[in-house]
Amino acid sequence: MSPRQMARPGGRSARVQEAVHTAVRELLAEVGREALTVPMVAQRAGVTPSTVYRRWGDLAELLSDVAVERLRPDTEPEDRGGLRADLTAWAEQFLDEMASASGRAYVRDALLGDPDGGNAGQCSAYAADQLGLVLARARARGEDTPEVETAMDRLVAPLMYRILFRPSGLTPAYARHLVTDLLGTPDGA
Amino acid sequence: MSPRQMARPGGRSARVQEAVHTAVRELLAEVGREALTVPMVAQRAGVTPSTVYRRWGDLAELLSDVAVERLRPDTEPEDRGGLRADLTAWAEQFLDEMASASGRAYVRDALLGDPDGGNAGQCSAYAADQLGLVLARARARGEDTPEVETAMDRLVAPLMYRILFRPSGLTPAYARHLVTDLLGTPDGA
Repeated sequence: MSPRQMARPGGRSARVQEAVHTAVRELLAEVGREALTVPMVAQRAGVTPSTVYRRWGDLAELLSDVAVERLRPDTEPEDRGGLRADLTAWAEQFLDEMASASGRAYVRDALLGDPDGGNAGQCSAYAADQLGLVLARARARGEDTPEVETAMDRLVAPLMYRILFRPSGLTPAYARHLVTDLLGTPDGA
Repeated sequence: MSPRQMARPGGRSARVQEAVHTAVRELLAEVGREALTVPMVAQRAGVTPSTVYRRWGDLAELLSDVAVERLRPDTEPEDRGGLRADLTAWAEQFLDEMASASGRAYVRDALLGDPDGGNAGQCSAYAADQLGLVLARARARGEDTPEVETAMDRLVAPLMYRILFRPSGLTPAYARHLVTDLLGTPDGA
């Protein structure tokens, strides 16, 4: 278990984490990623640099932790009353958030300061949980639904692959195309 | 255009690039990524550190360039006489190479030190070119073939997504499942 995982419980530990994360978010907005340093973050958070190094290892790991917090969905997927509409709305919003300049920076940060893969796995779990909710709602309505893993392969993976490797041409139409490819052409189309 | 793109032509420039890339590959094997520094690379390559900084900006950009070179396929995809067999062999090999410890490290390096996205785009172009060859061969045989972009979305994207975000459970059987999902169940199965 990494030091930062052991440091997760409440009390002082939680307050330090909150102060340091807040300092990182503020400084990213004020000075940008290139200029950010651990001593700068520590000063803003009111802790010593060694507290930061002890807990996060280095700046990349700290940025990765902050990024995962920022990438956590803060609402349930919208319920539009049908699987196709729900998946389309979800995929368009996922693309919109992840393909933005800040979304891409957070995804890269999450991946890069993540030696044990825990943060990347957490990002993927967020997407799988959201899709799981959409699909469970559709099943409860009696709709035919693909498995979550199939939806991960057919929606999330191509969106994220293109965000990371081929960011041009990422449009809402592409997200809708992936939904059609997953569910088939709608009746009457 | 970035400094390293301007430095690509032959002559002394090409010799410096070759020496520096070789030094990085040797030192990665000898001392590992964590211990690697620009002065160490420069000394091994017989150039000054400022030559390296001028040309590559920083260590991350240098590692990204070296990674892209390492990820370039050095052979054409194997011809097994049929699309399903060719795609299966290609997907299994792609997974084998990219999901290895060194493959994953190169993919992360390629993404990390790549502010303008050119190296990530190059990695993706390698895969698209290889799939394009496999699909063109199948078309020449008169087989029904998907588009390259569809094969990117259905094979490369899920493999790379899982390599980066969910490395457990990546097996040859998963690669074969993706091929079946792309081409449909084989006749007689």
